[in-house]
Amino acid sequence: MAVYTNVDDAALGSFLEAYDLGTVLSFAGIAEGVENSNYLLRTDRAHYILTLYEKRVERADLPFFIEVMEVLANSGLNCPLPVPARDGSILQELAGRPCAVFTFLDGTWSRFPNREKCAELGRTLAHMHLNCAPVTRRRPNALGPHAWRPLLDSIGDKAEVVGDGMKDAIADRLHTILDAWPAGLPTGVIHADLFPNNVLFIGDSLTGVIDFYFACDDILVYDLGICMNSWCFEPDGSFNLTKSRAMLKGYQSVRPLTEAEIEAIPILAAGSAMRFFLTRLYDWIHTPADALVSPKDPMEYLGILRFHQSVSGTAAYGIGL
Amino acid sequence: MAVYTNVDDAALGSFLEAYDLGTVLSFAGIAEGVENSNYLLRTDRAHYILTLYEKRVERADLPFFIEVMEVLANSGLNCPLPVPARDGSILQELAGRPCAVFTFLDGTWSRFPNREKCAELGRTLAHMHLNCAPVTRRRPNALGPHAWRPLLDSIGDKAEVVGDGMKDAIADRLHTILDAWPAGLPTGVIHADLFPNNVLFIGDSLTGVIDFYFACDDILVYDLGICMNSWCFEPDGSFNLTKSRAMLKGYQSVRPLTEAEIEAIPILAAGSAMRFFLTRLYDWIHTPADALVSPKDPMEYLGILRFHQSVSGTAAYGIGL
Repeated sequence: MAVYTNVDDAALGSFLEAYDLGTVLSFAGIAEGVENSNYLLRTDRAHYILTLYEKRVERADLPFFIEVMEVLANSGLNCPLPVPARDGSILQELAGRPCAVFTFLDGTWSRFPNREKCAELGRTLAHMHLNCAPVTRRRPNALGPHAWRPLLDSIGDKAEVVGDGMKDAIADRLHTILDAWPAGLPTGVIHADLFPNNVLFIGDSLTGVIDFYFACDDILVYDLGICMNSWCFEPDGSFNLTKSRAMLKGYQSVRPLTEAEIEAIPILAAGSAMRFFLTRLYDWIHTPADALVSPKDPMEYLGILRFHQSVSGTAAYGIGL
Repeated sequence: MAVYTNVDDAALGSFLEAYDLGTVLSFAGIAEGVENSNYLLRTDRAHYILTLYEKRVERADLPFFIEVMEVLANSGLNCPLPVPARDGSILQELAGRPCAVFTFLDGTWSRFPNREKCAELGRTLAHMHLNCAPVTRRRPNALGPHAWRPLLDSIGDKAEVVGDGMKDAIADRLHTILDAWPAGLPTGVIHADLFPNNVLFIGDSLTGVIDFYFACDDILVYDLGICMNSWCFEPDGSFNLTKSRAMLKGYQSVRPLTEAEIEAIPILAAGSAMRFFLTRLYDWIHTPADALVSPKDPMEYLGILRFHQSVSGTAAYGIGL
């Protein structure tokens, strides 16, 4: 949950003078997203989301995120479309923070998405990968493989809070992953954080993909690994091959994977598990007790990492070479 | 801001089977209210608010609050109307908490309401006082004058955190107020917490009165005192007589005050200032550092209290006897 910055009626009124959105009917901070402050703005014309960018988001990255959303929304995908002010600009300032207005997407997110939703997600992810081609700006993945060793080093001995000997065990697993990291696979713009809470559905129809604030350039199938990890494991930590197969089949119905991409699934999924394990562990250690947002348990991702490092072939994911 | 209880899509889905509200289009926790968890629920038919009652609200009081809202909404006032389940019941249970669904009211609240809004509030408050007559349940004011001495006693020496000698100074002021507390004035159901954040406007038209969870039986003009204190003081602590006059005039255009009621305004307004000073001081001392909701500064209300105890007649409020 998160509304870090309060916007009162007077500030909102002056801010909206720069826009042509109609008469405000309601305005409420919403408890979604952990990086930014989000307000639901309803006028007599439409629903909008007003996002205030808090300090964890780099200002210099905003034009890239905005471009990705514009390109995807204009390609027909269910993504928020940035709404320009009267002067055509997207990024504004409010309450001392950069901000932007977006179209609102209907739908609710699913804590444990079923097989049909996994298939829908696979198809949509492939569309996103294909339709981002016109994006001109570049953004390297700040949380990609090169960032993991420095992140583990910065955690240091504190890694032991999640278990004795954990520092060395993680270092070993990381070494194995980085050693086997594939080169030469297709790259492009990836979402990089497509967890179930960032995908909206009405029934089993996907109606929205949101929160592009980790989007970057990286290996496309790495994005699929992130989705498999966050969509296909059950609450008890077991891997649901049926869901994974549905997701991969959905993806391939739009963008068929090459043999090299399929072969790289286990290592890319392991890398994704390592990335979320490390950032969660870092947050776990560094979140003050009075924080508004509770840190997520890193151990879930250690279990996922172990799974990927134990599989003997891509058949484990419901896909063959 | 407050969403204390999380409701996932599966829990929401089963809960809504008991209702006939249409297909869910969106569902988001909203950062409004400090006592309960509130969700904005939009279906293909309408907008609703789903409120989950957290532990600061007494379950036994809920039927009274619900009845007040039903009576007022059915009388044509802009109040949330409880929406019954298919079986006709209002109070339900979700995620282990009592809860209810209400109609959603358009509008935004104003941090510093202007004179026109103060007049609108006065008229609406008078309508509320008149239209609550059919309410059959009773609820004594748990935070009325009889509660203030025990509250100050429970704060004890900790009152000194807001200033040296404050414990005795407050006890003196409290003694003066309780000694002069009026008897025999008209009573009825009062809102008892009608701060600007509980009143919605579009332009200067009042479109909603919300948050009835302090409503109770008490002196009607005491409610007016609460409104004067929270609407008519400027950010610098000065009293805006023009706003107060507009509010009183608006009120009297609907429900004329008796001479005894007018005469009692200074003492009732002082009592209201004492009530909010004491509860804020209590919260100031007792709120843990890691609380989701920051306590409000009690000193604002000490200034308001001093103002009321210094006036020499009702002319100070823009009203004569």
